Amino acid sequence: MEQKNEKVAAVPMRGMRDLLPREVERRQSVAASITQVYAKYGFTEIETPVVERSELLNTGEGGDNEKQTFGILKRGLSMTDIQQADTTQDIIDSGLRFDLTVPLARYYAHNHAKLLSPFKALQIGSVFRAERPQKGRYRQFTQCDIDIIGEDSILAEKELLLATTEALLTVGFTGFTVRINDRRILKGIAYSCGYTENELDLVFIIIDKLDKIGLEGVAEELQTKVPQPGAAEKMMEFLRNSGTQTDNDAKINLLPPEIAVEVVRELRDIIETVETLTNQEFTIVFDPTLVRGMGYYTGPIFEIEDKDFPSSIAGGGRYDNMIGKYTDSPIPACGFSIGFERIMTLLEERDNTDSHPLQKQAVIYDPTTVSDTFALTYIQRIRAENNGTVSLHKRRKNTKNQLSELAEQGYSTYCLLINEQQDPAFKQID
Amino acid sequence: MEQKNEKVAAVPMRGMRDLLPREVERRQSVAASITQVYAKYGFTEIETPVVERSELLNTGEGGDNEKQTFGILKRGLSMTDIQQADTTQDIIDSGLRFDLTVPLARYYAHNHAKLLSPFKALQIGSVFRAERPQKGRYRQFTQCDIDIIGEDSILAEKELLLATTEALLTVGFTGFTVRINDRRILKGIAYSCGYTENELDLVFIIIDKLDKIGLEGVAEELQTKVPQPGAAEKMMEFLRNSGTQTDNDAKINLLPPEIAVEVVRELRDIIETVETLTNQEFTIVFDPTLVRGMGYYTGPIFEIEDKDFPSSIAGGGRYDNMIGKYTDSPIPACGFSIGFERIMTLLEERDNTDSHPLQKQAVIYDPTTVSDTFALTYIQRIRAENNGTVSLHKRRKNTKNQLSELAEQGYSTYCLLINEQQDPAFKQID
Repeated sequence: MEQKNEKVAAVPMRGMRDLLPREVERRQSVAASITQVYAKYGFTEIETPVVERSELLNTGEGGDNEKQTFGILKRGLSMTDIQQADTTQDIIDSGLRFDLTVPLARYYAHNHAKLLSPFKALQIGSVFRAERPQKGRYRQFTQCDIDIIGEDSILAEKELLLATTEALLTVGFTGFTVRINDRRILKGIAYSCGYTENELDLVFIIIDKLDKIGLEGVAEELQTKVPQPGAAEKMMEFLRNSGTQTDNDAKINLLPPEIAVEVVRELRDIIETVETLTNQEFTIVFDPTLVRGMGYYTGPIFEIEDKDFPSSIAGGGRYDNMIGKYTDSPIPACGFSIGFERIMTLLEERDNTDSHPLQKQAVIYDPTTVSDTFALTYIQRIRAENNGTVSLHKRRKNTKNQLSELAEQGYSTYCLLINEQQDPAFKQID
Repeated sequence: MEQKNEKVAAVPMRGMRDLLPREVERRQSVAASITQVYAKYGFTEIETPVVERSELLNTGEGGDNEKQTFGILKRGLSMTDIQQADTTQDIIDSGLRFDLTVPLARYYAHNHAKLLSPFKALQIGSVFRAERPQKGRYRQFTQCDIDIIGEDSILAEKELLLATTEALLTVGFTGFTVRINDRRILKGIAYSCGYTENELDLVFIIIDKLDKIGLEGVAEELQTKVPQPGAAEKMMEFLRNSGTQTDNDAKINLLPPEIAVEVVRELRDIIETVETLTNQEFTIVFDPTLVRGMGYYTGPIFEIEDKDFPSSIAGGGRYDNMIGKYTDSPIPACGFSIGFERIMTLLEERDNTDSHPLQKQAVIYDPTTVSDTFALTYIQRIRAENNGTVSLHKRRKNTKNQLSELAEQGYSTYCLLINEQQDPAFKQID
């Protein structure tokens, strides 16, 4: 029970943040709307621990995110153990999850006997990355993922796209663009230009920069970093031709014959189904330059862009080779992740009206003339008759100030108890 | 994009657990009921980061929990830095929070200008303790705390007790016992027996063991560990007399005159208010031997016990000296924490009926005779007309098995699409 007396700084850990009541309320309201849509589609929420074994966080599946893992010190190490360590792996045995996909793969392998097959998972949870802190980017942030595990047909892609676009429409987005591509299409294009299998990763990384460095930039990097004779020229020709087309069918018609007919048929089928089954409140476009960063994608990939945000607000794709690393046999999988922090940023910017989902009423009593027992008895009766918040406050000298503070916190009405004989009416706070 | 090929073990980190869909559903449903009650009383939910600075996790306020902190390795350390470390504090700069109270104190100090005063906080979140893993105890678990910061009168204690008992009644507990005491009463009893200020902590730790080691055990430990002449005998006499009384007033009448009249008046007032304003669905008893472990309590303390659980299911009290360590002036505070994992254990044991809050319907289509586009079109229409889950499944050869798996996951009805001309009725899964 030792208690030190020096004052302790009150700032959060570097790169981390506190959420105010108003922020928590809005985040939970948006999360609840998204969850409700996903539940309608049969996605069930699961939870994995925040802490995972180092082995799991260092498989290579996490890409660059693995380098940003917060490592947790092994328990029970002596200072000698620490001083004699050869690598950090000698002193850490676990870390904070950097995404929800790697833990999901482990979860499915560990629990699949108790789950429906195919399994439709929903996860909303915190992930942690030791990125350089910057405005609007935090080292703990929320991800919102849905995944279908065990479905090898494009039924999975269709359901993911229908559910996620409906979720985004439900929380107020409209007019966004779904970009779709397929890793097998990217490969076919690269092969048709003359690139070899070993060069694919690097070629994709360069093409992925198209938005940032433009066609010229891509051409230059391809020529200097992947010097395959004639290939860069062919790639540029394809990108230029494709870039001039706006129609999905026209773009598909430009694809080289190296791409399997089945792959193109699936692409058309996904686009057509999404267009037919939704009310055209958004656009779905085939973008043969869409890469998506993670190495684990094997088939269709997709991203959603909102005109007001520079990067994507959602993204996902098929990753058929990951789950099998934890199980005895390969298991197909496909996922879609909403950038929860990004959509919250956009929703906060757009919605300046204070829409509190819960009605909030305040009972203010004068403690010099009304006992707390009387006030509590009075308010318990009102609470029993109401569903929203009915909170009790002692009257302050500056009641006007007090009312405006309550208004800031979303309170709409109040009543003032100044003696024990009354039953005052609630008034608007204005 | 390096990908290793060896199989990775799928078990969670030692002492951590995965939550299945059914578990998440029940936990969220219970948490939502509790939250709704607390919101009614004006408590607003806040969130603090999972990671806090080491400085904050080593103030002494956390008691023994501080020793169970998971430490996070500093970023950017070289192996030389690690090998030359003198203490673990040289290589860790932060850790996982072990409770929600210490972070709340920091949060209030950092954000109080943006919060109502008094501030009524609700927190439901994960905390982490490196305890020895054992059945039903995990190293990551959920706490559910309410706190009132800035209210120095017992209005705070009354509201906490009314809100928490209503929350427990709402989720299905009844007939529980609220035990109440006051740290100032404990001190007065100890002083009246002849103990000195320095001995109080140790005396309280021993009295706290009364349930486990009995009166004889307490007597022996007091005599050997706190050898103050005659004091142990006086304490035993008090405990024996008090133990024979069951009536609150009778127990209060046994209190020594060293305890301030005001303290006793407050105790009576709290008990009377809680008894008057609730429907006697539980009992509130004065227990002068109630200690509660944490060193930071300064006034009234309380615990809730359920007859089916060996330890308390909720506990709290006043801690007027903690928040001031982070702010410029002292700030009174009082909190109440529900043992969320404990109440979930009890609720799971009691409720064997599968009460799914959400209606779940399955559309099963035969993929050999029905296209996925037809099935999706069909189900989107049903989804638009329903609020619950309407999920799509491909028919498996053993449809009976498939239906029983669906039933296990809470599905109640299904329809079978076997051609593209029909509009089949939903049937019960039995």
